Amino acid sequence: MRAKIIHFLKTAEGYISGEEISHHLKISRAGIWKYIQDLRDEGYDIVAVPHLGYRLVSSPDKLFPSEIQSGLGTKILGKDIRYFDSVASTMDVAFQLGMDGAPEGAVVCAENQTKGKGRRGRSWVSPKSKGIYMSVILRPPMVPADLTRVTLLSAVAVCEAVRKMYRLPVEIKWPNDLLIQKKKLAGILTELSAEMDRVRFVVIGIGINVNAALSQLPPHSTSIRNETGQKVSRADLMQEILRSLEAWYLVLGQEGFIPVIERWKQLSSTLGRQVRLIDPSGDVEGEAVDLDEYGGLVIRSDTGLMVKRISGDIVQLG
Amino acid sequence: MRAKIIHFLKTAEGYISGEEISHHLKISRAGIWKYIQDLRDEGYDIVAVPHLGYRLVSSPDKLFPSEIQSGLGTKILGKDIRYFDSVASTMDVAFQLGMDGAPEGAVVCAENQTKGKGRRGRSWVSPKSKGIYMSVILRPPMVPADLTRVTLLSAVAVCEAVRKMYRLPVEIKWPNDLLIQKKKLAGILTELSAEMDRVRFVVIGIGINVNAALSQLPPHSTSIRNETGQKVSRADLMQEILRSLEAWYLVLGQEGFIPVIERWKQLSSTLGRQVRLIDPSGDVEGEAVDLDEYGGLVIRSDTGLMVKRISGDIVQLG
Repeated sequence: MRAKIIHFLKTAEGYISGEEISHHLKISRAGIWKYIQDLRDEGYDIVAVPHLGYRLVSSPDKLFPSEIQSGLGTKILGKDIRYFDSVASTMDVAFQLGMDGAPEGAVVCAENQTKGKGRRGRSWVSPKSKGIYMSVILRPPMVPADLTRVTLLSAVAVCEAVRKMYRLPVEIKWPNDLLIQKKKLAGILTELSAEMDRVRFVVIGIGINVNAALSQLPPHSTSIRNETGQKVSRADLMQEILRSLEAWYLVLGQEGFIPVIERWKQLSSTLGRQVRLIDPSGDVEGEAVDLDEYGGLVIRSDTGLMVKRISGDIVQLG
Repeated sequence: MRAKIIHFLKTAEGYISGEEISHHLKISRAGIWKYIQDLRDEGYDIVAVPHLGYRLVSSPDKLFPSEIQSGLGTKILGKDIRYFDSVASTMDVAFQLGMDGAPEGAVVCAENQTKGKGRRGRSWVSPKSKGIYMSVILRPPMVPADLTRVTLLSAVAVCEAVRKMYRLPVEIKWPNDLLIQKKKLAGILTELSAEMDRVRFVVIGIGINVNAALSQLPPHSTSIRNETGQKVSRADLMQEILRSLEAWYLVLGQEGFIPVIERWKQLSSTLGRQVRLIDPSGDVEGEAVDLDEYGGLVIRSDTGLMVKRISGDIVQLG
C-alpha cells in the first residue's frame, strides 16, 4: 500500500486529492493521512494544500522497499525486499534467507555494508548511501554447472540497465566486472546452494558505485556520478536493474543460454583482446577468442594452444 | 583419549594391564579407571581382573565417535565426528556446520533419521541403529561444475569399502546408487555451497542398509545382513568407508578425475546396458555407452543420436 501511494504521488501531475487516492486504493482518507505522515517521518517531503491535495516535492535518498516497489512492474523480482540501514554483507543475509526458504525473487539491500564481499574473498567498498548493494535470490531449475550462466546473465542485465539509464559506455570484463574505460563501476557475484543435480537457490550480488566520489572508492574505480557529472537516483537505477535482470532471467528460461551469451559478447571488452588470466591452477597469456557453451573463456595462448578456463582473474593487456 | 583406550582394549590379546595403558598413554591408573567406567556406562562390556587387567568382551552397537576413531588411521576424515542418537537429517546438520565453518573432514552421523534425505526431494528410510547414516564435509579446491566428480568418487569409495569388507558383488548404478542384483543397498547424495568459481564446501551423504531386515526397508532394497546372512559391525564398515573415501579424495586431488572415472566404469552396472533416463528435461532411451569428462552419462539413443545428460534417474532395461 505504501508503494502504491508513493506511485500515485510520483505519477501525479501536480497535486492529487486525498479523495482520488482514497477512491482508487479503497482506503479511508484518514488512512491515507496516516500513510502520508509515516512517509514524511522517513524523509519524504510531501506538501498538503486544502482543496488541492498532496504533492510530492522530494523523496529521501534511500532504497526503501516501498520506494523500489513503487511502479516497479516486475512479476518475480522484488516482491519481497529486505532493507537494512547497515549489514555485514547482503550476500550472507540473502544466503541465509535462501536456506530458510525465501521465495524466488527476494531481494536484500542495504545503505551500507561493513564487510561487503567481492570475488574470491575480496571485499567490496560500500560507502554509505552512495551505491547500490543488493543481493537477489533466484531458484532456477538448473544443475550446479549452470551457475556461470547466471553470472554472465547478471552482468548483461546490469550492463544494459546502466547503459539505458545514463548512456554510458559500460563494458563487461570476463566474467562479471563492469568497467567504463578500464575503471571499475560495478561488480557482480554469484553464490550457490545445490544438490548434485538440482540448484536449490542462487544468490546474485550486485555492487554499483553510484553517487560516490572517487576519494571514497578504491583505485581504478569510477562511479555513475563521476561519469555523468551529476548525482542520480539510486532507487531509479535499482528498479531498472531488477527489471533488466528479470527480463534476461525469463529469456534464459524460455530461450536458453545462447541469446545471453550473444549479448554478453556484444557488451564485453574482453574478447579479441590480449589478456593474462591469473588463476591458482596456472596463468595463461594470449588472445581471448571466445566463450564456450558453459561461459568459460577460451584463450588462444601465445604458444598457439587453445585453453578453456572457467575461473580466474583477467588482466586486459591490449 | 577414549578412542585410544578403546583401541588398546580392542587390539590387546587377552587382558591388558592398567599399568601398560597408563605407561603408553601417560595418564594415571585412576584416570584409566574413570574412562573404563564411562565406557561401561555406554554399553561397553569390559571385565577387570586383579593382576591381569582389563579385557573388552563386547562393544555396544553404536556409532560413537570414539568407537569410529579408534584405529581409524585417516589424516583428514573423521577427526571431528558429531554423533546424534536421532536427527532429522544428517545432511541438514552437516550443511549448517559447513556454513558455520566446520573443518574439512568433519562427519555427522546418527543412529536414526526422522527425515532422511534421498535424491531429488525423496526420503531415505533409516531404521534405528540398523544402518549407517552419515554426512561428510569436504572443502575441495574446485568449481561448482566439479560436484559430479565428488558424487562419482563417493560411489566408488563406498562400493570398494563394501566389496572389501564382505566380498559382495556391489555395483554402481549411475550416478550414485549401490545395488546388489538390482536391489538397493546404499544411496549417496552430494550437496554444495559455492561461489561462482570456488566451492566453499561439499557435503557427501551416505546411507547404507547394514543390519536391517527387509521388512524394515522399502521394496527393491537389500541390506548387508540380508546378503551375508549375518549381523555385521556398523562401526567397522563406517571406518572402512572413511578410509576409502579419504584415499579416493587424495587420488582426485593428486591425479585428477581420470583414475576415478576409470574405476567407476569398472564398478558400474550401467554402461553397456539398455537404459531409460527419466528427467524433467525429457526422457531418453538407448544404450548407456560412456561417461564424459564431467561425469555426465552418454546415451546412444534408439534413434541413433548421442545424448549427454548430467542429471536424471536411470531405469536399467537390459
